[in-house]
Amino acid sequence: MRLCVLADGPVGTSVARLADRYGHSVTAISDSQRSAIDEKGLDIEGILNQWEDGKGFGENSKEDALHADYDVLIEVSEQTLGDTDPAFSNVKRALEQDRDVVLGNKILVAERYGEIQELVDNSGGNLRFDATIGGKLPVLSTIDYIGPSQITGVRGVLSGLANFILTRMATEGLGYEHIHAEAQDLGVTNMDPKWDLEGTDSALTSAIIANKLYFPEREFNLDDIDVEGITEISGKALDQAKEDGRTVKLIGDISRDQIRVAPRLIPETNSLALSGANIMVQIDTKYSGAINISGKSPTASETAHAILQDVEGLRT
Amino acid sequence: MRLCVLADGPVGTSVARLADRYGHSVTAISDSQRSAIDEKGLDIEGILNQWEDGKGFGENSKEDALHADYDVLIEVSEQTLGDTDPAFSNVKRALEQDRDVVLGNKILVAERYGEIQELVDNSGGNLRFDATIGGKLPVLSTIDYIGPSQITGVRGVLSGLANFILTRMATEGLGYEHIHAEAQDLGVTNMDPKWDLEGTDSALTSAIIANKLYFPEREFNLDDIDVEGITEISGKALDQAKEDGRTVKLIGDISRDQIRVAPRLIPETNSLALSGANIMVQIDTKYSGAINISGKSPTASETAHAILQDVEGLRT
Repeated sequence: MRLCVLADGPVGTSVARLADRYGHSVTAISDSQRSAIDEKGLDIEGILNQWEDGKGFGENSKEDALHADYDVLIEVSEQTLGDTDPAFSNVKRALEQDRDVVLGNKILVAERYGEIQELVDNSGGNLRFDATIGGKLPVLSTIDYIGPSQITGVRGVLSGLANFILTRMATEGLGYEHIHAEAQDLGVTNMDPKWDLEGTDSALTSAIIANKLYFPEREFNLDDIDVEGITEISGKALDQAKEDGRTVKLIGDISRDQIRVAPRLIPETNSLALSGANIMVQIDTKYSGAINISGKSPTASETAHAILQDVEGLRT
Repeated sequence: MRLCVLADGPVGTSVARLADRYGHSVTAISDSQRSAIDEKGLDIEGILNQWEDGKGFGENSKEDALHADYDVLIEVSEQTLGDTDPAFSNVKRALEQDRDVVLGNKILVAERYGEIQELVDNSGGNLRFDATIGGKLPVLSTIDYIGPSQITGVRGVLSGLANFILTRMATEGLGYEHIHAEAQDLGVTNMDPKWDLEGTDSALTSAIIANKLYFPEREFNLDDIDVEGITEISGKALDQAKEDGRTVKLIGDISRDQIRVAPRLIPETNSLALSGANIMVQIDTKYSGAINISGKSPTASETAHAILQDVEGLRT
């Protein structure tokens, strides 16, 4: 497949670098300024080295990338809340041209789920965004497998970074700054760690899961979610919880009626009490109890692999 | 869909009783002796009440059920090791007639995987057996989702009953008989508890997972598996493990080269150290670390729901 990669960060550059290993070529790559295009397949290593030296992608405008010959648009550019353009219009253009699209950024999927689904319904192209939930964790695939009508609710530890920091605060009594540096070394931070600590990342993940479960009957976006982060939790509160055999976890709780993201006291023996830079999604089913899916929070390179596997998934 | 249910135990009778809720009718039901047939749909409650009173299914031979009009054969009869007929020949006949088949019994799938796949390859009918692994746990669906080529190995706590008994032995210091009675009350036992305690059930599950991963390159059955159960583990050994911050779990360990089922010492903080009548499957991936899937061991009725959901899955 020929890929057009819209990227300005480590996930996008990893996708471009790894594409060859999956048998794909990158025919266009763009950041928010400029693009590089070669319909025979770009020399990715050369181009990215140049880009990483601050020299940009070259002379073509970013719009030129979207006019290049490609089969799959991979939209993984950084976005900010409330500002999902031009990402949305890029996706719109691709789907209107019956191209396939893989999305790697939560904001666009969470904030404009209904509009995107409508574009897909009217397109000959396919769409995947499984990688937006914990990289390769089988969350959306399992919702498909179990069937939304058999699921009564979903809750989970949705931010690996928030969980890593809570775990370290609880076990080591270390201050936030020290722990944040550790998290950066492990490659588990987003650009802006506040994003995770204030609960925004968990809320976006919750919105995507809720839309997967309840759309088109109901559509959720950030405005529908009651969000409280972990920034107000003291070391003392964590010590107190520990004495009572409990632990504090940042939990996203999703039902048909409401979504809530907030710190919650969880018994240490509960399966949600997982430690470290891990994610867990617990799916309540009508007839099979709770099904737990967990794994480590993906790095940029792991997310890139998951995105390239979503490209494979377009064919199935 | 019109179902033909081959059943002689609680899973089969639950499937027949629940079929209506999924919009299906049962046109034939058989045990190892006799069958009841009505091509307009059987009065299941009346027939099962009669059967449960020991009066059998009626005058028709068991072979007659296979000549009835039906769309899906549900083969959930009890089988014994080394004796997968007539189950196999029933499945063969159904697939040769281009009917769909759902299997609920591990033995047949584990022992004759290759032959069954060959029948499916030459049939207009479809086959599902997802319910044989932990009921509705998304194990086989996740192997499909991740892709066998991206998976480097699988291990897990595969018998809920063995895990329940190990957990109780470790925490309560109770003898086996007391704990077995508890397990029966909870509905987590197989007909023969030795089955789980000697590791056979875990070995069959391991063989199915291995075949899903490696067939046709390699085919596994029970003879290829090194099996050791938990019957030789003393309460003392469990106490010793606990003092060292460990716990003993019956682990099935699956790789391309070998499958092993044996008790293993696991650190209490490891995700495989789950307690109670639960199952966990840990999938090692090339690029996303280990993905854990866990949930409770299904009861007969929960397995029946999973089988009926496999019937839905035939259409996708």
